[in-house]
Amino acid sequence: MENVIMEQLKQAKEACRQMQNIDCETKEKALKRISDALFHHMNVILEANAQDIEKAKDNGISDAMVDRLRLTKERIEAMAKDILKVIQLDDPIGSVVREIHRPNNLIIKQIRIPIGVIGIIYESRPNVTVDIASLCIKTNNVCVLKGGKEAIHSNRALVQVIQDAIAGILPDHCVTLIETVERKDIDYVIQAHDYIDVVIPRGSAGLINYVVSHATVPVIETGAGICHLYIDQFADIKMAVDIAYNAKIQRPSVCNAIETILVHQNIADLFLRALKEAFAGKVKFYVDETASQYLEGESATAKNYATEYDDYICNIRVVKDIDEAIEHIYQYSTKHSEAIVSKDYELAEYFMNSLDSACVYHNASTRFTDGGEFGFGAEVGISTQKLHARGPLGLQEMTSTKYKIYGHGQIRK
Amino acid sequence: MENVIMEQLKQAKEACRQMQNIDCETKEKALKRISDALFHHMNVILEANAQDIEKAKDNGISDAMVDRLRLTKERIEAMAKDILKVIQLDDPIGSVVREIHRPNNLIIKQIRIPIGVIGIIYESRPNVTVDIASLCIKTNNVCVLKGGKEAIHSNRALVQVIQDAIAGILPDHCVTLIETVERKDIDYVIQAHDYIDVVIPRGSAGLINYVVSHATVPVIETGAGICHLYIDQFADIKMAVDIAYNAKIQRPSVCNAIETILVHQNIADLFLRALKEAFAGKVKFYVDETASQYLEGESATAKNYATEYDDYICNIRVVKDIDEAIEHIYQYSTKHSEAIVSKDYELAEYFMNSLDSACVYHNASTRFTDGGEFGFGAEVGISTQKLHARGPLGLQEMTSTKYKIYGHGQIRK
Repeated sequence: MENVIMEQLKQAKEACRQMQNIDCETKEKALKRISDALFHHMNVILEANAQDIEKAKDNGISDAMVDRLRLTKERIEAMAKDILKVIQLDDPIGSVVREIHRPNNLIIKQIRIPIGVIGIIYESRPNVTVDIASLCIKTNNVCVLKGGKEAIHSNRALVQVIQDAIAGILPDHCVTLIETVERKDIDYVIQAHDYIDVVIPRGSAGLINYVVSHATVPVIETGAGICHLYIDQFADIKMAVDIAYNAKIQRPSVCNAIETILVHQNIADLFLRALKEAFAGKVKFYVDETASQYLEGESATAKNYATEYDDYICNIRVVKDIDEAIEHIYQYSTKHSEAIVSKDYELAEYFMNSLDSACVYHNASTRFTDGGEFGFGAEVGISTQKLHARGPLGLQEMTSTKYKIYGHGQIRK
Repeated sequence: MENVIMEQLKQAKEACRQMQNIDCETKEKALKRISDALFHHMNVILEANAQDIEKAKDNGISDAMVDRLRLTKERIEAMAKDILKVIQLDDPIGSVVREIHRPNNLIIKQIRIPIGVIGIIYESRPNVTVDIASLCIKTNNVCVLKGGKEAIHSNRALVQVIQDAIAGILPDHCVTLIETVERKDIDYVIQAHDYIDVVIPRGSAGLINYVVSHATVPVIETGAGICHLYIDQFADIKMAVDIAYNAKIQRPSVCNAIETILVHQNIADLFLRALKEAFAGKVKFYVDETASQYLEGESATAKNYATEYDDYICNIRVVKDIDEAIEHIYQYSTKHSEAIVSKDYELAEYFMNSLDSACVYHNASTRFTDGGEFGFGAEVGISTQKLHARGPLGLQEMTSTKYKIYGHGQIRK
């Protein structure tokens, strides 16, 4: 495998230099052609996807997973339409971030440029292939896509459609699909310092941990979400229950859903009665001693608090005050998203300032941590690290900068 | 060593939460006290430094290195004054980077926050200890300083002065000095995912490479500088020679000095004659065939082009056009700083746009790649990587961001 992969990475790196000079109009033309091609070649894509689905079923993969893998006419149309939205977004490349005029008359301009070659290691959903390719093209980046084995036929078909659509418009190899035999083959990508500028893993905690611990190229860590909702003593009960319901139940499988609700002791009686009614039978609870007086469930342990369920399961803990809630979040949070429900604005500010998670909410659901909901128009993932970018990764987060310095003979004293 | 270091890192991490809530006034008070303390405890610092100097001489270390290690009354005063300048700089923490108002009336504010715990692995110059500590305090970051063994007495004395000065004002352990026995002990720092948010190596290529290849925490790579100067056929000869002189000879030991001059064939005769006169006897040349007709020197090899001399040595190559110059730079540059001298503005833009180095200059010396010269007031190093920050790392580059989202009960549809 090594030789094949290294040759592909080398070609991707070569595409990089041409790619950085592609103008906005050409990028738009290429994206439009990909969008059109997805419509035109729908049957080819569906047939390829059917092979993946069949294999998945043979392998006894869960219905939920099969659903993530499945492409339909509607889903392909949605992908094609999303590309048209990406075309509409502002092009960040070439924009001036800062301009500095120095006393010696040097003019320093900080300019947005592409990152270069971006490696994406992902699983399951084949629409990621098209999403990432279009966002990378929009930002003049070359992408090296390493999808999951379970989606290989779909990804091959999609990348073929993309490559055919952009042939002669964008540099060859600016969208590259890597196929691996075993997980260890990923190492060739995530350790290819000479060819890859950054790796972004998207998928299960297992995949992300593997990439973070084995990569030697820079990584943008995404996704793991043990998110918290704190119901303050000065919360509106209806708002608190609505937000709890939305953040836990609307779509529990995603990273911005909550795993634990922390409740101020003074409002526990009112809130937990209301919660019991709203959540009735829909959620399995793990509870502390006080909460056990209202909700049926096993005793919550440290292990429960440290688990991302991605499921209809919720920990409930009653705390004596906001500081105990903050302590709990510091101990168990993956620093993704946390929310407070309170009518006390000062207390809410204290909560939001004390925590250093990527997104902190006052009186709103954690489910809004999303590129689309933030108005970025698209999203590569949710960064939970401190370097480079935090929270939803939009187009701007797919860029780097350089300084252009204009003089007329200045030398340093 | 492991237990001692891990305990220190743990304490640093604990300091981090208190540190993030320290207000601007308190930070200024602490910095002022450090500045004062450096004046007051000058003798203690000079005595400690004398021990390092003595040991260095016993070990037969070069005069240049001993000079880097040496502290004098004047140098300590300069350090103390630099802190007063840091106090004057704008405090980036808490500032609003973006504010987004969404159609659903969510208000999203992106806020600058500290990175957390910053590990600095550096060598030699003890003034780095004070520089970094003051920049980290200014940005509410905790710093873990791992200086070189050759400066251990100086660093111990400086950190003691700092810690005494800020005791009772800033959290304990917010400035921590790590002492290691062997280079491998650095691994405890650069692999401490639970305690360190980012590592910045400063020093020799050997040190930087060691950190990059052994770190599992995120690294900001700094420093390596194989920089280029291209003299276009439409260059002003005097300006070209002045910039060449400044970029090569003014201070050859620093990373923003050039190693190679590329000359357009049509101006080679005029420029190389002038260069010969200006550089007479001051620089050892490695030359290509055309340049050898003007300058004495050995034949330049690929190895020469790939070497950061940090010395009075210069490669000279005559190229047929700007594209050959760009090709050369792509092949050998460490993507730090490159410059073109030309009266043709369009050609200069082409040069600056084609290269993706951190800093690209038109008609100015590469020696300006420096936080002070950029107006940042201070500098942690020069980043040559694409992620997080490029070029001079000022206060802003020592920060991360988080999103604060304000709602009134919004839930996601």
